[in-house]
Parts: sequence; structure tokens; C-alpha cells
Amino acid sequence: MTKSSGVTFGHSAAHSHESREIGTSGIEAIDSLVGRYCRGWSLPGGFYSDPAVYAADIERLWRRGWLFAAHSCEIPQHGDFVTLQLDTDSLIIIRGEDGLAHGLYNVCRHRGSLICSQASGHAHRLVCPYHQWTYGCDGRLLACRGMPEDLDKSEFGLKKFHVRETEGLIYVSLAENPPDFESAFRVLGNAAKPQGLARAKVAKAVEYLVRANWKLVWENNRECFHCNVNHPQYIKANFDHYNADDASDRVRAEVSAVVQRSQAKWTAAGLGPTREESGMTKFPDAERNIWFSANRTPLVDGYVSETMDGKQVAPLMGDYPDPDVGTLRMRSLPNFWNHSSCDHAVSTRLLPAGPQLTSIRVLWLVQAEAVEGRDFKLEQIMPFWQLTSEQDWEICERQQRGVNSSAYVPGPYSTYKEYNVDSFVQWYMKMLTKTSA
Amino acid sequence: MTKSSGVTFGHSAAHSHESREIGTSGIEAIDSLVGRYCRGWSLPGGFYSDPAVYAADIERLWRRGWLFAAHSCEIPQHGDFVTLQLDTDSLIIIRGEDGLAHGLYNVCRHRGSLICSQASGHAHRLVCPYHQWTYGCDGRLLACRGMPEDLDKSEFGLKKFHVRETEGLIYVSLAENPPDFESAFRVLGNAAKPQGLARAKVAKAVEYLVRANWKLVWENNRECFHCNVNHPQYIKANFDHYNADDASDRVRAEVSAVVQRSQAKWTAAGLGPTREESGMTKFPDAERNIWFSANRTPLVDGYVSETMDGKQVAPLMGDYPDPDVGTLRMRSLPNFWNHSSCDHAVSTRLLPAGPQLTSIRVLWLVQAEAVEGRDFKLEQIMPFWQLTSEQDWEICERQQRGVNSSAYVPGPYSTYKEYNVDSFVQWYMKMLTKTSA
Amino acid sequence: MTKSSGVTFGHSAAHSHESREIGTSGIEAIDSLVGRYCRGWSLPGGFYSDPAVYAADIERLWRRGWLFAAHSCEIPQHGDFVTLQLDTDSLIIIRGEDGLAHGLYNVCRHRGSLICSQASGHAHRLVCPYHQWTYGCDGRLLACRGMPEDLDKSEFGLKKFHVRETEGLIYVSLAENPPDFESAFRVLGNAAKPQGLARAKVAKAVEYLVRANWKLVWENNRECFHCNVNHPQYIKANFDHYNADDASDRVRAEVSAVVQRSQAKWTAAGLGPTREESGMTKFPDAERNIWFSANRTPLVDGYVSETMDGKQVAPLMGDYPDPDVGTLRMRSLPNFWNHSSCDHAVSTRLLPAGPQLTSIRVLWLVQAEAVEGRDFKLEQIMPFWQLTSEQDWEICERQQRGVNSSAYVPGPYSTYKEYNVDSFVQWYMKMLTKTSA
Repeated sequence: MTKSSGVTFGHSAAHSHESREIGTSGIEAIDSLVGRYCRGWSLPGGFYSDPAVYAADIERLWRRGWLFAAHSCEIPQHGDFVTLQLDTDSLIIIRGEDGLAHGLYNVCRHRGSLICSQASGHAHRLVCPYHQWTYGCDGRLLACRGMPEDLDKSEFGLKKFHVRETEGLIYVSLAENPPDFESAFRVLGNAAKPQGLARAKVAKAVEYLVRANWKLVWENNRECFHCNVNHPQYIKANFDHYNADDASDRVRAEVSAVVQRSQAKWTAAGLGPTREESGMTKFPDAERNIWFSANRTPLVDGYVSETMDGKQVAPLMGDYPDPDVGTLRMRSLPNFWNHSSCDHAVSTRLLPAGPQLTSIRVLWLVQAEAVEGRDFKLEQIMPFWQLTSEQDWEICERQQRGVNSSAYVPGPYSTYKEYNVDSFVQWYMKMLTKTSA
Repeated sequence: MTKSSGVTFGHSAAHSHESREIGTSGIEAIDSLVGRYCRGWSLPGGFYSDPAVYAADIERLWRRGWLFAAHSCEIPQHGDFVTLQLDTDSLIIIRGEDGLAHGLYNVCRHRGSLICSQASGHAHRLVCPYHQWTYGCDGRLLACRGMPEDLDKSEFGLKKFHVRETEGLIYVSLAENPPDFESAFRVLGNAAKPQGLARAKVAKAVEYLVRANWKLVWENNRECFHCNVNHPQYIKANFDHYNADDASDRVRAEVSAVVQRSQAKWTAAGLGPTREESGMTKFPDAERNIWFSANRTPLVDGYVSETMDGKQVAPLMGDYPDPDVGTLRMRSLPNFWNHSSCDHAVSTRLLPAGPQLTSIRVLWLVQAEAVEGRDFKLEQIMPFWQLTSEQDWEICERQQRGVNSSAYVPGPYSTYKEYNVDSFVQWYMKMLTKTSA
Repeated sequence: MTKSSGVTFGHSAAHSHESREIGTSGIEAIDSLVGRYCRGWSLPGGFYSDPAVYAADIERLWRRGWLFAAHSCEIPQHGDFVTLQLDTDSLIIIRGEDGLAHGLYNVCRHRGSLICSQASGHAHRLVCPYHQWTYGCDGRLLACRGMPEDLDKSEFGLKKFHVRETEGLIYVSLAENPPDFESAFRVLGNAAKPQGLARAKVAKAVEYLVRANWKLVWENNRECFHCNVNHPQYIKANFDHYNADDASDRVRAEVSAVVQRSQAKWTAAGLGPTREESGMTKFPDAERNIWFSANRTPLVDGYVSETMDGKQVAPLMGDYPDPDVGTLRMRSLPNFWNHSSCDHAVSTRLLPAGPQLTSIRVLWLVQAEAVEGRDFKLEQIMPFWQLTSEQDWEICERQQRGVNSSAYVPGPYSTYKEYNVDSFVQWYMKMLTKTSA
């Protein structure tokens, strides 16, 4: 299933940010911070706390690129919808009669009331609770009782944003002219297809409000330098924490053996491309404009799933013939990563909620027909990533407190271990300083 | 009973806002928003969230006009006082030996301590808890032990503000030269007199902190377009929600019958003027500078009180000879409305507490001698307006979240149903852009 | 025991405040407030709430002077440490192998994580929980696994700040070139020595978060004008509240008798200098740059300790031969005061946490070998100062609410009773307006 919704935009440049103006002094502050950034070093502290930087992040990154919004299986039927909150914007993703997912700003065109207050629901028409202006799933204004007869309904549809859907993944862009999505569509779609995300269901969602800037959350995600001490569960299953400087001959041999066995088998089954080395795959790449990627990575021998003991704990997902499929990993900037094992998938979605606040949802997915209690238990599929995630959120909050200090100065990244953090920061700086969408 | 306190002001222009400066960039932001406003359309979003607009609202509207402060029956005796918090200002209204209500800033002239911490109390002298500077009910400094003998006490009275009292209603103005109050004095006083508010007592007060800009609360109050779906209790008793576009012949006939019967009777009893049509009476009127009004409105046949079943549930108030008096309605900008039935009265008082925060008190009054449990039950007099109020606060908070969105753009008001919202907004814009007090 | 740590600084002017910029408009606001200040009168309101003033207070006072940080007995052994939070800075004080207390910013030089999250602990090496960069107690970077081999560890020690330790008191300065400490070292050290603070132990610590600007807390501390009504416990034991205007002949005689008896005895025992009058000793003195002082003050006849009934309730501290030693009092700006009786000592430490927020720790100390339950009871040593302190915090919060009002204007200080408040404010203005460190 691969879907997209044709969008025409009724809003122009007048559609500006009321409450998140950067302002002249803000632009000066950003320029000064940008001038102090050095490649290979962590960002100056103001990037993690200055309200002007936050406003610029929202405007120049979050409102220009493609954001992971939801899984298709969250809104399988016509009328199913979810809402999400990006800074001050509430967004509706609703499945239309045409089967397409539509992106609608959750703001009535009459007097601006929020239309849907719930996180998810089902409705064939979106009726504003204030004065019952009624919209279709495509945003068209269908009825507005009490208004003058000459009101041109075609002028008052809900504001829309772009939506693309591929193999169970729903992406949105708030940009008027979003960047190209075709490569992401293909790469992520091809990777996600055998996992069967389009035929999955949500087993559990956990929402976190993390007291850290969203970039700290990404920097944490982009290295496994911190795994040895902080993620005892994660390192039992993975090779990510072994890098060029510390992968012993024994480790190299182990990786090599697992990879060679898997590589041949996965290639035959069409499950490539495969990660062939220890350490984390390189991502992102600012120069080549790589903001998404996917790969299949072998697990440690004896592990067929990212669970506490490595055992399969739910029915096989998608097209997998057997459990030995390593882990599928996908990620896209600025707000998504996913680790999928043979039997379950875990998606993490970030949404900024303030200069030092990030709203994070972790979602566990299983095969659509699996029944909780009978086919899987939450206490078996959840702990591995729940523990790993919460360990990371604690790290991020501690780092936020430190970078807020007057004594913080940027430090050097390890070329062995933090190459991806460096790449993330370079990507960020490129996006921040781009002058046009 | 009609009272006013003669006031002389000891504070000059030096008495400025320390913590709510609008500033140059704030004035630019306000000017830009004002420039984007169109008559007949809702306000641009920044009016509901920009701190500079909030500061201007406080300075240009709230500190210049007349505010409803309290009911006379809250401070019947010499020494009775109430305090209220308007933004950063704590205000004392205290009954003097002269029987007049005096308005005193709750700030000791010695080192600025709050003098009264309680919401209400009784004291013949106001003694600062810090160093016992002692003031009379008229604000005069009476004693200041420990200060040099040559301190001129007449220079250190409590700062005062204007107070007017009419038929049980106490109004205040923080302006040095407040606008005319005589018409309001007469209109509101004449309307309130038969209701006997001066001979009432407080049955119950409920305080709310609503996460919405105060203007959203007013806009909600100024139309009954939203009543059909949101106020199932209210619409059973009233005709407000029927407008020119949807009042059927049956409804018109019903209104007409009730009005004609009531009109004649009330005119004879001196209870006019009467609302003669369905829908809400027109208020306010920026061009004619109408910021207050009152009228008597018939209830639906079978209802003699705004209660859940329309029945009288407390002793008759004031001069009413029988329960068939419809409802008295009074309102004044920027912070008061009242619905009074034959047996009880409900007053709503707004006080801004931040750009997106409004402190609201709803007060239920009954006849002074009525005894709770014996003559009335709170569970009978409260639900109608408690439910209606809380339904409205929820609407306002939902609208605040929507107008905060970057996708919000002003929408058109219904000429049939939102004429008063339009009038409120025009009044607001006139007040905001007035260059002098 | 008198200690100091030699410090070399690795950070230069680049080490600036990211998140607390004063800015051009802030400097204008401060200049305007400074221009409105009059000697002998309380400060204009903006000094207690303006974020720019707060930022200037941090930069010009708190980061330039000497701050009381901890008692030596909180970190007796090599590896013992405490952390404290000054605005956005977390500070570590750790006892080195050399026996010296070292001051280290709690910010890893790698990616800025907080290193120690606890308020106190024990560690011979400080290991960052993120990537295990490892520092010595002197801040030197000892290990940084995973970084390139050519990283010069000597460049990446923890940022340091100055520490001086004298007779159980640990002071720190964040200034690159702190002001002279030698006089304070001598005066406070000599005063503290007989009290035996270096041979004490912490009996109890209570942390408060007081909703008032730190200067209001000091102004409250600098007069006993408010004691009569607010501190019923305190005035039973002390003469502080009697001033030139209200000390009767009986009081004068009583003070004189107690002083003469004590004076002779204490001088002989080397416990001077002694406070010889009622009222509070004069402190501070902006012109003579007096920011610290100490004196021994007689208690009311029958009192040998600042306890509820004046009785000794714990073993004698330090070198005291008998309980009749009055109270030792020490204080230093901007953040410390101490009242020590024969049997226990109480230290109060302020740390600003926002324009209208002060973090306050009150610490009770007893002789090192005293055992709770056997030698002393918390319910006997704590109430006197716990009640007095909490009475003051309530006063400060009430004053903050008052000075936030638009009606607040500065008031006159009593020359009889508030001479020290006046002196504090003058000292503050001098520090604030000093152009260089």
C-alpha cells in the first residue's frame, strides 16, 4: 500500500507564526551562535536553550522538512484519525473515503477553535464543537449553519499540509513546497515492506515529556559510545558499541561470522542492504542531503529479537519466513527512528515542545492478528526498548542541565565513536542557515 | 443605597508599571496586529497570546475603565473588606466608618509588603504585618512606630483608587481620571434595585483559573450561537439562541406571547425595560461608547428561575411581588455579567492573570435572610449556571489552543448570530488604540 | 585547619553566559532603575522582578564575590563532595588527596553533561555518566576512552573556581580574579575557631524554595524592626529588637549588666569582640567595602542557647569551657549568615534561582561526636531557628507580592531601626554599578 494525498493550499505567506517570532535581536543571537560553531565540536550552549534558536528550529527545520507522523495501522479505516502537537500546532491525520491519509490543521476556519481534542478517534465528518462548522475528511467545509448564505464555502476549508504514506509509514510536511520525498518513499518503503508495517497493529504506546532540547535527544541517538555503561540490555543484543578503536579480533570474527551467514541468506530473501560492520551505520550526511536511511543489521548470535533474552516473543511479522532476520533499522530527520525485529517493531517519534522540552512517543507494533495475552505479552515485548529509551531520556536531561551552565564550552567529538553526532550537527547547521525553503 | 468615596490621589506619573513594560518592539508588534484586523472578522492570533498585547490590555483597558469589584453585601459593615488580584496588583475594598467603600492598593507605603493576605476579612485598621504601619479604612497612615518623628504621615497614606457603589454593585477604577460613571450608575442601579442586590447575601462563590485570554471569554459570552450544542440546560430556559435566521414561526409566536404578557405586567411594576425579541440584546456599542447595559428578559413558559427545572428554589429577592419576573441581565466591560432570577442572582467577574490565563469568580446570591438548608439548597440554585459556566470555560480553553496555531487565520462572524462578538471586538480595538486616557 | 586550593584557570572571556544575556534593552532598564534609586529609601520595584536585573545580579555580584558554599565537615575525607546550584551553574566542592577542597564546575568537557547528579557523595575520581570521561579531584582529565590518541588531556580538565577554607567554613568565588579574601579569612576564621565548626557535624539540613528575590531575603535579615510581632521565639532570647528609640532604661540596664559580665569573661577567654549594645551590629558598609563580619552577642539572662527555653540541649562545641558564651554571629554577603550557641550552630545559605525565587538551605551543626537521640534531640535544637526562618520566608513572599504591584513606590527606611537595610541596599547598588570586576 503506497499512498499520497493531492493537496491544494489555501493559505499564503499571510499564514505566519504569531507567537514564535524570531525578531531582530533573535537573529543576531543566532548569527552569533552560528559564528562560534566549529566542525567536530559540540554546539555552543545557546543552541539548546535560546528561545530564538528554538523558534528558528521550528520555522526552518520542523516546518520545512518531512516529519514522521504516524503508522498507517493507527488509522486503517475511512474516518480514523490521530492528532499530534508540533509546538503550538495541532495536526490531524485522517483517512479519507478515498483511502488516502489527509493532513489538516486542527483549527476551525470560523473562530479558530481546536476541532478534535482527542489523540485519536473516528469521524466521517469533522464537526467543530464550538459552532458546528462541518468539514469533510479532505478538509472541505461542508456546512456552516447560521452564517450568511453568500459565504463561499470553498474559501473556508481547513488548512492542509502534505501527507505521504509508504508501507505503513505516514510522513507529513508543513512546507508549502516540501523538499523531494521520492527517494525516502522508495528507500523507507522498500525497507519497511518485508516487515509488514502496513499489516501491523499497535500493541502499546508510551508518551514521554523529556526536559531536553530535541537536538540533545538526537545526539544521544547518533552514537553508541554511551552504551557500554548506560544500556546493559542493548549491548547484549547488538554490535553497535564496537568501533574501529575497540573491536577486538574476537569481536571482529564474531561480527564477520554472523554477517556472512546473514548476508547471503538475507540477500537471497530480498532483505538487503545489510550492515556489514560493527558500530553504527553512517547517518546523516549533510553534504549529500541524506536525512533518512534504512539497513538490516545482524544481532548477536543467539538473539533473534531485541528482547531481554533475545528470544522471539510474538508471531513473525510481514513476509518473514523465519526469525533469523536481524533487525531492520530506519531513521529520518528530524523526528523518527525505528528498530524492528522479526516479531515486533518499535518506533520513536520526537516532537519539540519548547526550547528545553521534547515530547516523545515510543510505539510497539506487532503483527495485525496477534492477540495480547494469547500471542504476545507486553511484559516480554516492551522492556528492552522501554529501558533503553528511559535510560536515554535520563542522559539527555542530565546533559541539558550541564549545557545550561555558564561553564559549558563545546567539546571535541570522538572520530571513532561520534562521527554520526558530528554529522547530525553538520546537517542541523546546514538546515538552520539555509536562507530559503 | 448609593455610595461613592471621595478620592484624592497621592500618586503621579511616577506610579508606573515596573514589570509590565510594553517596550518599543512590543508597540511595533501591537501596531502590526492592529493593522491586520478587519471588521467583521475575528482577531489575528497575536491578540490572544502576545505578552505586549497583554501588557497593553492591562494598561489601556483594565487600568483605565470601570471594573466590577464586588457586591456590597460582601462588605456590609464598617471594617469589612475584600481583596482582589488584577494582574500584579492586589486591591483592597474596605467599608469605612463613613459607610463608604474605599479602594486601597494592598501595598504598604513603608517597604511595599502586602498588607492583607486573605481574600476577605474584617478590620477597623489595616496593620501591615511586617512593621505594623497602621492605616485607617480611608487609607490614611495613622501610626508608624519606629520611624523618625518628622515623618509626615499625610504623605504616606495607602495609594487609592476610585470606587462607586450603586444598589449592591461596587465598581472601581484605577485610572487617575476615570471615564464618566454617571450613566452606568443610573442604568445599572435602576436595573439592580428591584432585584434587591443591596439586601442580598452570598450563598456560594466558585473561583476558576481558565487557560484562555480574557477576550476569548468575552467573545464566548457575547453570542448564543454555541448554545444549542454546548448548553443543554441554558437553552431550555431561554430564547437567546433563536436568531433572525432560525426563529421559526412557532418560536416567534411563543416569544411574542411571553413578552406581551410580561411586558405589560413588568412595565406596570416598574421592572422595564424589557427585551422584546429572541436572540441576545445588542451590546456593546463602540461608537456610542456603550460599555454597560441591563435589561429584563422573559424566560420560556413554565420557567420562573434559571434552575434545572425552571422552578423557584429560594425566597423571592428584592421587591418582587411574585416569581414571574423573567431574568434581569446586566453586563459591563471589561469584566462583569449577571443573570438574576426571582429567587437568586449569579454574578461573574473576570480578572486577567496572564496572556493566556483568566481568573474568574462566579458568585451566587440569595435574599439576605434566606438560610441555607432551610430556605434554599446549593444543589438547587447552583447547577444551572455552574454547568453553563464550566461548559464555556472548556470552550474557551479549546479556542485558545486553536488560535495559538500558526495555521489560525481570522474567520468571518455570522451577521445573524455573532453581531455582539463583532461589537465586542470593535469596542476592544477602539479602547486599545485610543492614544490617551 | 586553614586551607586553600591553588587554582589555574583554563577558561577565558569566551566563557560567557549563554542563557542569561542582559542585552541592550536590559541595560537601559537597569540604568533607568538605578537612576530612580534614592539613598535612605527602598529600591524601585523592578530591582525585585526584572529579568535583566536578575541577570546583572548574577553576573556582577554573584559571579564576582565570595560565596559561602558549605561547611568543611560536610566533606571531611578525600573524595567527599557536595554540589550546589547557583542559577544555571552546578558547582562541585570536593576534598582532594591533598586535603584541600577543590571547586569544579559540574560540566563534562566532552559534551557538557552534568557529572554528579546528587547533592553529596564520595568518589576519588569523577566519572561522567555519559561516556566515562574521568577526572581527578583536582579536575584534571585522567582518562577519556574512545577519543583520538592525540587529544591533549591537559586542555580538558574541568573548569575550576576559587575555594578558600577557614575554620570549618568553605567559600568559593567564580570570578577569574576574585576580590581579596584575606581579611575575611582572618576575621571569620578567628570568630569561628572557638566554636569548633571544623570539628562539627551536620545534625540536619532543611532546603527551602522561597518565592522572593534574594535581596528581599537580605533586607529582611538586616533588621529586627519586624521581630516584635513576627518572631515571638527570637525576641525572648535576644536584644536585637531594642533600638535607640525604644530601649527603655530597664532594657538598657539589663543589656549593660549582661554585657559587662560577659565582656570581661569573654575577653579573658579570647572570645571577643563583643557586641556591647542592644540592636543589631552595623553591617554591611559599602564605603569601607565591608561584606563580612562577626561578633559575639550576649543573650538575655537565663538563656545560654538559642532554643525555645534557652537551655543547653547538646554537648558544648569547640573550645567552650562552659555554656555562657552568648551567641557567635557571622554573616557575609551575598549569601551567608550564622548564629552559633554554645551547643549548636545554625548556618543559612542563599542561592538565587530566578528573579523571584531563592533557594535557601538552613543547616544545624553540633559537636562532631554528639549522637542524635543520646546527646541531642532534633526537636530541641531545631524549632527556634526553624520557626524564625519560616516566619521570615513568609514575610519575604508577602513583600514580593507587594513590590510587584504597579502601586508600589519606594518608602523611607527608619534611621533607628533599618540602618542596616539601608547599608545593604547601598552595598548592593555599589556592586551593581561597578563597571569592572
